[in-house]
Amino acid sequence: MGKGGQSHGEIKDGEENMAAWLLGVNNLKIQPFTLPPLGPNDVRVRMKAVGICGSDVHFLKAMRLADFIVKEPMVLGHECAGIIEEVGSGVSTLVPGDRVALEPGISCWRCNLCIEGRYNLCPEMKFFATPPVHGSLANQVVHPADLCFKLPENVSLEEGAMCEPLSVGVHACRRANIGPETNVLIMGAGPIGLVTMLAARAFGTPRIVIVDVDDHRLSVAKNLGADETVKVSTNVQVSLIQIII
Amino acid sequence: MGKGGQSHGEIKDGEENMAAWLLGVNNLKIQPFTLPPLGPNDVRVRMKAVGICGSDVHFLKAMRLADFIVKEPMVLGHECAGIIEEVGSGVSTLVPGDRVALEPGISCWRCNLCIEGRYNLCPEMKFFATPPVHGSLANQVVHPADLCFKLPENVSLEEGAMCEPLSVGVHACRRANIGPETNVLIMGAGPIGLVTMLAARAFGTPRIVIVDVDDHRLSVAKNLGADETVKVSTNVQVSLIQIII
Amino acid sequence: MGKGGQSHGEIKDGEENMAAWLLGVNNLKIQPFTLPPLGPNDVRVRMKAVGICGSDVHFLKAMRLADFIVKEPMVLGHECAGIIEEVGSGVSTLVPGDRVALEPGISCWRCNLCIEGRYNLCPEMKFFATPPVHGSLANQVVHPADLCFKLPENVSLEEGAMCEPLSVGVHACRRANIGPETNVLIMGAGPIGLVTMLAARAFGTPRIVIVDVDDHRLSVAKNLGADETVKVSTNVQVSLIQIII
Amino acid sequence: MGKGGQSHGEIKDGEENMAAWLLGVNNLKIQPFTLPPLGPNDVRVRMKAVGICGSDVHFLKAMRLADFIVKEPMVLGHECAGIIEEVGSGVSTLVPGDRVALEPGISCWRCNLCIEGRYNLCPEMKFFATPPVHGSLANQVVHPADLCFKLPENVSLEEGAMCEPLSVGVHACRRANIGPETNVLIMGAGPIGLVTMLAARAFGTPRIVIVDVDDHRLSVAKNLGADETVKVSTNVQVSLIQIII
Repeated sequence: MGKGGQSHGEIKDGEENMAAWLLGVNNLKIQPFTLPPLGPNDVRVRMKAVGICGSDVHFLKAMRLADFIVKEPMVLGHECAGIIEEVGSGVSTLVPGDRVALEPGISCWRCNLCIEGRYNLCPEMKFFATPPVHGSLANQVVHPADLCFKLPENVSLEEGAMCEPLSVGVHACRRANIGPETNVLIMGAGPIGLVTMLAARAFGTPRIVIVDVDDHRLSVAKNLGADETVKVSTNVQVSLIQIII
Repeated sequence: MGKGGQSHGEIKDGEENMAAWLLGVNNLKIQPFTLPPLGPNDVRVRMKAVGICGSDVHFLKAMRLADFIVKEPMVLGHECAGIIEEVGSGVSTLVPGDRVALEPGISCWRCNLCIEGRYNLCPEMKFFATPPVHGSLANQVVHPADLCFKLPENVSLEEGAMCEPLSVGVHACRRANIGPETNVLIMGAGPIGLVTMLAARAFGTPRIVIVDVDDHRLSVAKNLGADETVKVSTNVQVSLIQIII
Repeated sequence: MGKGGQSHGEIKDGEENMAAWLLGVNNLKIQPFTLPPLGPNDVRVRMKAVGICGSDVHFLKAMRLADFIVKEPMVLGHECAGIIEEVGSGVSTLVPGDRVALEPGISCWRCNLCIEGRYNLCPEMKFFATPPVHGSLANQVVHPADLCFKLPENVSLEEGAMCEPLSVGVHACRRANIGPETNVLIMGAGPIGLVTMLAARAFGTPRIVIVDVDDHRLSVAKNLGADETVKVSTNVQVSLIQIII
Repeated sequence: MGKGGQSHGEIKDGEENMAAWLLGVNNLKIQPFTLPPLGPNDVRVRMKAVGICGSDVHFLKAMRLADFIVKEPMVLGHECAGIIEEVGSGVSTLVPGDRVALEPGISCWRCNLCIEGRYNLCPEMKFFATPPVHGSLANQVVHPADLCFKLPENVSLEEGAMCEPLSVGVHACRRANIGPETNVLIMGAGPIGLVTMLAARAFGTPRIVIVDVDDHRLSVAKNLGADETVKVSTNVQVSLIQIII
């Protein structure tokens, strides 16, 4: 967990906080997860919805993902939403009972990237369930208040947990400057491809073509509003380009 | 008409071309309108739909609009669409039978504004029905081919005639950088306010508030998709601001 | 001082830290200034050069500036440079002996403006010598390490102290997108006008016209490289515009 | 020549217009060059300075450059300046005696690229000395008035002829958004590399590193103000990168 929980199993309010600990390859156990002290700018959140990301599955199956290696038992999970239970002494923007989506990465706010407003690229980022930082697949977590965003009434907690992957799609559409004058090609109809598709539609694109190697994923994309789907195999890149152009 | 028609009533293909001539205040007559010769880069278009703009009405009622004064009889009309009947020797992009929307202004392509891509601001602009340039409320007009845009099959000629006012709304939304993260306030629910509203929706705005002094205009705006309408009078500016913010 | 010093006069390293305290209108005294504890991300800096800003003079003469009112004794000074004497346990970018310019404002890093990279506009900003925050006109101050910028060898400490006002000019030139194709008009040849002039030259502007009501200021501007100076009085705005255009 | 001269050798004002005709590989002859009629928006210019571009040399040596093949005798030369001798009936911006630099390409002003202000990319471009368009290495040429730019008094005709290559450097610096916060690496110290270097300096860059395989070119670059020169061979790319970074 971002603020640094421990596994000693402390009781809080008469209740033991439990979490999904990754102990080894394909070895996941529900065990006590001690919360760190609540800092003045922190909130304590009861988790209500936590997505299972591909990265969580990678860690479960291989204890690693790219350069990140799980060397010590680690709580999984990072895309999540919950209900505020307690707020630190300096928190004025949230109150217990608020339904919030959690931004899973805590950046340093001291490096140049943070200062320039690109804190998502902070090299000192502490991100839920990226070793050695614990994740949020727990009954409760402690998190900085400014990384908890209150949900509107018409957004469910399950939808709130999807804010994090959705934000990837929104970021992609901002960077690509998507609008009503832009046709969009999305390479891959996995979860990130799909949220990018939804974001692109919201940005006004009149036409989305989505590409994948899997029929089922393409049919999901079609149902979610893709204007055209293209199935590819490693043998037909040339014809793909011909179709698209 | 942009290329400079005359009123002497020449016969073309056994048919006399007729147009709506503004002769004086509230004095409009259908009279012959001689087409200029078809230049190599021109097309001859049979008009199928011509909008009546507020500017046409102003000229009809007062023989003037702002600094533009009608000193000689002038053909009215500028927002229009039609079908190509003849193309000049150098035209390769259009053929007779093509359904087209006409861009009503012919810019000089020599001034700095034209060179920079802001030809809409050209001080030498020759614009349909802006004295002393004749308009397009005629059976036929001759116009530069590159200012005639072929309509897709699913766009009617009446819709084609509305491309010109719609482009005002599109331009406004581009300049204001409207997107899914922008709320929009439109001051005035006249035709330009409404096309701007439609354009803003296409650009992805989640919320449009539109303001007018007229109940009927606001109800039209509501039917076309305004999220909120605000009726104002000259006595309630302060409360308007309170409502909006 | 940004981190919150006190006036009780504590001894540090056998030396009492002294500062210029504003006690009342035109009442400035050199008095002991207790440094706060050095946090893990802080540095202790021996001040070597502190500019006297117009804001310092305003506070001295009136105990206020705009909405900022000096209600308690306050140490003055904010544009400054010095030499690192001690670094906190978490500081890896600076070492004792480093010559640094200090950025005088500590922002919250939690509000939307900070997150977007516009931390200079943070509403929770704690800025040297802006009541109730103490300034840096002291022998030593404690300041966050990430707000201390190491000076190149060819930049003096006096020049370092001018980084803060200079940055105002740089910011203005960035926002105005100054370049070799931009002529620049600067209204006012005070310190900020002059640093803006120097910045504009560095941004490549070929022509700078600077305006003031004071002959001496204009002659300084001329010596620093203004292409043209214009003296104005409240009676000649019209002719000024004629000259400039 | 852009407006389409012919080689029949017509007398104008009692003087035969002569030009440098490329007749075959390494076969260049001074022969009569008939000027086209002066259009209403054209000017007749007496050439005073014409640069010899690498493209001219390529055509001379091989009768081709990339996809451009010289199939008929062609006048060479495109970077040029001269003095106006005659203006068309519609020209209001220039008068005989004006010293001008010529923009060598005549674009169509009808394609989308022209309309968007990127006329330099026009696929219908007629460019001096790009077959089959004749060049400007002649006593006189006829050219559109809006492509002739009056030179300030302090710019010589030789400098005027260099406006065209210089504009390449200016365009590169605009696209790369060069300013006082940008270090610049230029790959190649030929004429275009050097004008880009001069432009980058004017845009405010504090540091220019220029790379070439030729010692003489690098020494010229150094004399013109390069901060650092790097000589490379095809064997040392890795160490180059080490030097630059």
